[in-house]
Order: sequence, then structure tokens, then C-alpha cells
Amino acid sequence: MILAFLSDFGLKDPYVGIVKAVVLGINPALRIVDIGHQVAPQDVMGGSFVLGSAFREFPSGTVFLAVVDPGVGSQRIGLLAVTERYTFLAPDNGLLSMVFRYSKKVTCFSIENSHYFRHQVSNTFHGRDIFAPVAAHLSLGVEPHFFGPPCPDPIRRLPWPEPVIRDQYIEGEVIHIDGFGSLILNIPADLIQHRKPVSKQFKANIKGMELSILSTYSDAAKGKPLALIGSSGFLEIAVNQGNAAEVLDAGVGEPVVVWNKYGVTR
Amino acid sequence: MILAFLSDFGLKDPYVGIVKAVVLGINPALRIVDIGHQVAPQDVMGGSFVLGSAFREFPSGTVFLAVVDPGVGSQRIGLLAVTERYTFLAPDNGLLSMVFRYSKKVTCFSIENSHYFRHQVSNTFHGRDIFAPVAAHLSLGVEPHFFGPPCPDPIRRLPWPEPVIRDQYIEGEVIHIDGFGSLILNIPADLIQHRKPVSKQFKANIKGMELSILSTYSDAAKGKPLALIGSSGFLEIAVNQGNAAEVLDAGVGEPVVVWNKYGVTR
Amino acid sequence: MILAFLSDFGLKDPYVGIVKAVVLGINPALRIVDIGHQVAPQDVMGGSFVLGSAFREFPSGTVFLAVVDPGVGSQRIGLLAVTERYTFLAPDNGLLSMVFRYSKKVTCFSIENSHYFRHQVSNTFHGRDIFAPVAAHLSLGVEPHFFGPPCPDPIRRLPWPEPVIRDQYIEGEVIHIDGFGSLILNIPADLIQHRKPVSKQFKANIKGMELSILSTYSDAAKGKPLALIGSSGFLEIAVNQGNAAEVLDAGVGEPVVVWNKYGVTR
Repeated sequence: MILAFLSDFGLKDPYVGIVKAVVLGINPALRIVDIGHQVAPQDVMGGSFVLGSAFREFPSGTVFLAVVDPGVGSQRIGLLAVTERYTFLAPDNGLLSMVFRYSKKVTCFSIENSHYFRHQVSNTFHGRDIFAPVAAHLSLGVEPHFFGPPCPDPIRRLPWPEPVIRDQYIEGEVIHIDGFGSLILNIPADLIQHRKPVSKQFKANIKGMELSILSTYSDAAKGKPLALIGSSGFLEIAVNQGNAAEVLDAGVGEPVVVWNKYGVTR
Repeated sequence: MILAFLSDFGLKDPYVGIVKAVVLGINPALRIVDIGHQVAPQDVMGGSFVLGSAFREFPSGTVFLAVVDPGVGSQRIGLLAVTERYTFLAPDNGLLSMVFRYSKKVTCFSIENSHYFRHQVSNTFHGRDIFAPVAAHLSLGVEPHFFGPPCPDPIRRLPWPEPVIRDQYIEGEVIHIDGFGSLILNIPADLIQHRKPVSKQFKANIKGMELSILSTYSDAAKGKPLALIGSSGFLEIAVNQGNAAEVLDAGVGEPVVVWNKYGVTR
Repeated sequence: MILAFLSDFGLKDPYVGIVKAVVLGINPALRIVDIGHQVAPQDVMGGSFVLGSAFREFPSGTVFLAVVDPGVGSQRIGLLAVTERYTFLAPDNGLLSMVFRYSKKVTCFSIENSHYFRHQVSNTFHGRDIFAPVAAHLSLGVEPHFFGPPCPDPIRRLPWPEPVIRDQYIEGEVIHIDGFGSLILNIPADLIQHRKPVSKQFKANIKGMELSILSTYSDAAKGKPLALIGSSGFLEIAVNQGNAAEVLDAGVGEPVVVWNKYGVTR
């Protein structure tokens, strides 16, 4: 079984290694895969996006441990969420927003049974003291309802900037910038792709530039911007062999309009 | 069995991967857990702190490989240190200072038996050529004394800035800044905690500010500094959802006075 | 079996974790070792050097997955290269240049058999959609020729800056700067080492300074530059307990002349 691990712990401190030590002390056979630990400190929205664009690639049965937890030690509950394919452990602060958006039949439990916690629980590191041992016990087959009662409704979700769909165009925005500097938009590919073969009639407008939606980076000249369907299923603005965020001087929240002379269908 | 690995190799170069390749070439079944590789280059004190605040979380039997080694290739010896629960491999330059401080019954050997080394030993990368193969052979059950004779005394320890305990106050200092910007002090929690329930009578003074010792980050208003017992067992100064090092403009060595009107007991 | 993984994906995004998820979904028992993911974005030459200085340390039978792929989705083919000891998967853009340079009997295949690809192949993330599942199937014992036909010749190699060997001196240059700031030259150790015991007669000239070739860092005074044989088998210029790139203000391409009054033999 795989434990997929996301956090904002960074790699300078031993916090990631400590969580793994606790997990492996309980289940030495567990396979741990890092999704990433360089979410900006306490950036729940950023963590939600990274987790949300990764989790569906993991094998069925994977347990996800996600810790971006500015409210650690406060009254916020710890969530254990079960979907058709996966189990998620995270603080109830919206970190699972994108998971909930793309999952059906979510059952949630509030992690409360201290029998499965570390002997001593700090107020500052529930990743180590609560989530890690619970993840390890889950992976050993302990049933979800053993960890606590069903969650109160509603659990927290972050506001998601929905694209606005008009007759002739879609209004969207940049929701994430990846390490290559590509601008990922809140416009899912299927808003455009189901209109094949005219999908290439679409143009993306950003900062006064009109970009064609091409198939791949090298369809644009080196150093030139383009739009394309990115690997996580969203429309994306990139620069061939360059950094779009720098070239276009654009950040998260930058508005983008996608336009088609034949109109847009919901 | 777990091999826990700490170094200052960084993640840009292949050095971390090379050490793992050598280890797994000898013991393919060994589980390797990274404590971290972003200790500042050749910062033995920083490496000592990261290792010292992590090692006690690992399961009994773990072998630790710690390589921050500015004196590689010189006359400094390579240490194999055995404690009640763990085995440590590191250059004899003080990197194990905090391990020795928190361990009883340490037995040390000088790593000298080239039978367990890489066929060719460089003068610049003992992590690969000596420590990695020794770690792998240790994990396969070779007894510690096979790797060399007992260590000469005394082995090197870094000076540790002890807090000064007075009748009414404790003088301490910042010894580490973590990736969240929290300031970790050289004042162990038990100097304060055993005085419960009056522990909250303590105040921490830093840069002219007097901070209450609270239970968790969110006990302070967002953006406000506080003091609390950190997860590694030291008093810590943090900012709720912020970066204390930036907000307070404080670095390693910054003096802090912890004060209690009822006085302090050793 | 080991899968050694190199990319320019960085650690901020989930791309590395996604590739691992796909691999482990097909072969859950595979051991994955990261060589590194902080190659500068789309820096094929830098990736080639990191891979080339690491691969020979891995156990025989290792499969290497190397993805630095600015031409993803274009007509560039995907390579499967088999050497006496290893198998490599990489785009055909020169990323395997140093591997080819140091390997004999290389057989290459063009990865074309979509039977082994992800169900849906994007134009932007062949690491996930093609290389990862092919790597996993290879590790399960699928024969290389099942993935596609032999490669057309010639496959791409990057120009390699050969050192110029004269009677009295060698003209070389800096080809890489590592995380410690050491300057790695394109001058292999054996150009110098086979002339022992007079190897120490060699001097390295950089930016008007003449440096002795010493055995190890601490043979120079703290903060002083020196030359030595580095751990990857190339001549290297370093500063004892310092950063040579900063101290000497030198970057990749900086010329270096190695001189010996007794002359140089090819």
C-alpha cells in the first residue's frame, strides 16, 4: 500500500523525516511517496491545488496524508475522508477542497480516538503526533470508523473561482503557476475539448495578447507564448522553452478570456 | 531496518542519489529515510541541531548516516557510535554533539577497516566511499567492532550554549530558525513545564517585547508573536500564520530572557 | 530492481510524485531512487552532466528514467538505450550524451508501442504518460524490443567541450558548478593521474591565479582556493570550507589551463 504525503514542511527541517519515522515505526512495510513539501508555508489554497492535481494518478487504495495546518492545536478537527478509491487525512481547513470537488461518495470521520495517537500529543505538530500514527494504523487495516465519529456537516471548502461561461467567451483566471512558470487557468479542458474539431478556433486573451490554443509547446516559436491543454486537465498558458510568468509578468488571479467566434457551449 | 540519512549535499547535485546507489548495491532491502540534505554547506552546528531534534523519533535499531564533512580527506576519524537504541555514522567533527547529549551509554569505534570500503576511496567524498558501504554492511548485521578499534577519547563535541538559570529568570538565546521562521531557543521545555500550572506565568522577552507563553499558535492573533513549547521540546518564539524571524528581525544568537515572578527552579 | 529518476520537474509541483504514482501503480515492488529533480528547467546539458556523473555508481540492472524534455509532444523520439549494465529511458535530445560517452555496446530502440503507454497520452507530460509506464513494464521483465523498433542513426549528442592537449599544457574549461560552489572542469583525472608521482607538479591556472593540485580540501588554508581530483573523476577547483564560484567569480565556460614543466602526455 502507498502513503502519499504532502506538506508545507519544506526540506530544510527534519519535519518530513520525523513524520516518516513515526509512520514506519508502526508499519515498517508501508511505501511512502512524496507529493511535495514545498507548498508555501500555511498556503492551504496552494496545497489544495497541488493535491487536487495529483491524487487521481495514484493507485486505488492509496492513503493520502496532507498537512498544511496553520490552525494546528486549535479547535479545527482532523479529517479522515473516504472516497471510492482513496482515503485522505488532513486538517479540516479546506485543504481537501479539490479532492471533494472531483470525488463522489465522500464519507468523513472526525479523528478523535487518542488510542491511535502518539503517546504525547503536542499543540504544534499534529502531523507527527496524530496524522502520522493514524495513517500508519489505517494502512494496517484499522477501519475508518475506529478513529472517530462521522463528521459534522458542513466540512470546510475553499471558495473556488469558477469560470464564467458566456455565449461567445469564457472568463477565467490564473489559479496556479508551476515550477516552469506556466500559468494554469481555472478553465477545464472539457469546456473546450468536447467541441473538437473546432477547439483550435479558440483564442486565449491575456494582458492584451491573443494566443492560439496549440497542441504542444514546440508548436510556438522558441520564446513565444501559447495556450494549450495542460497535463492536469486545465487550460494553460506557457512559453516554448521559457517562463510564461516572467515573460508575461502575470501572477495568480490574472484574468484570461477565452473566445471563439462560433460561441461556447456549457 | 531503516537507514536515516542527513547531509549538506543539497538536492541539485547527484551526491545524495549516489550514496543511496552505493548503499542499495550492497543491501537492496534497506529502507532509506531522508532526514534532510539542505543543511547549509559545511554547517556542522546546523546539521547537529537537525539530527539532534529528529533522531529520537526513529524506531529502535535505526542506523543514522550523517555527512557534513568539511574536513573530508584530512586526519579526522570516521565515527561509528552505538547507543542503547541506535547506531550513528558520522565524521568526528561535532556533528553528533546533540546525539551524545541526549544518549546514555555511547560506545564509539573509529572506522578504519578498508575491507568494508568502496574499492577506490577518494579524498573528497567519504559519504560515498566509506560511510555508505559501512552503513550497508552494518545493516546486514556486521558487528560494530569489525569496522575498527574503539575511539580515542575525547571525541569532538561542539560548544553548546547553555541557558543561564537565575532565581527569577532564565537567560537563553535563539539556536535555530526553522523553515516557518520560528525561533527555537536553547531553553528545554522541562525547565518550565515541571512548574505547571503556573507555567503560563512565564514571559519571554526578546528585542524589548514581552511575550506570553501560550499553548498553540492560534492563541495569538493572526500576525502576532507568541512564545510556546515547540515540538522538539524547546521553548520557541513564533508568529501566528507568519514568520517570526522576519517579523522580529531576529537571527541565531539573539538573546531571550524568560521571566517569572515566582522564580525559576533548576 | 532500482529505478533511478532524474528530471527538471523541481519539487514545488507534484510532477515527480505523479510519475512515481504511475510507476508504482504498475509495479508496486519497484525501488525508486531520486538522482535529482532540480536540473534547471529545460537545461539538457546540465541534466546530461548530473546523470553522467552519477549513473556508474548504481548497481547493475538499474533502469534510469531521465526527463528533461523541452521538445515534449514534438517529433523527437523517446529513446530506450541498453548498455552492458543498464537501461536508460529519455527523450532523444542529447540528455544521454555523457552516458553514451562512457558506455560501450549501446543498443537503442525508439519507444513507439502505445500498448505500454498510459490510456491517454498528453502532449505535455510524456514523463507521466509514456516514460513512466514503459519504465514500470521494463522493470517487470518486458524485453526492450517490445517497446519499439531499433533507433535510426545518428541519435542526438550534445557537443562536448573536449580539452585541448598540448606538449606543455592542457586547455580546459569549467563545465559544471556544484552545490558547494566547486568548479568542475572538462579535464578527466586520468590525463594527470597516470603521470604519478609527478602529478603534483601540475598547476591549474584560472583567472590569473596559479593553483597547486592538492590531495584534499584541507590541504589548502581555510578560505583558500586549490585544485584537486574531484569525486566524479574530473579535475576540480574548490575553496577549503568556502565557495569557489563566489570567491573566484567564475562560471561555466571559464577557461582553465593546466600546466606541467615536464609536459603532458595524451
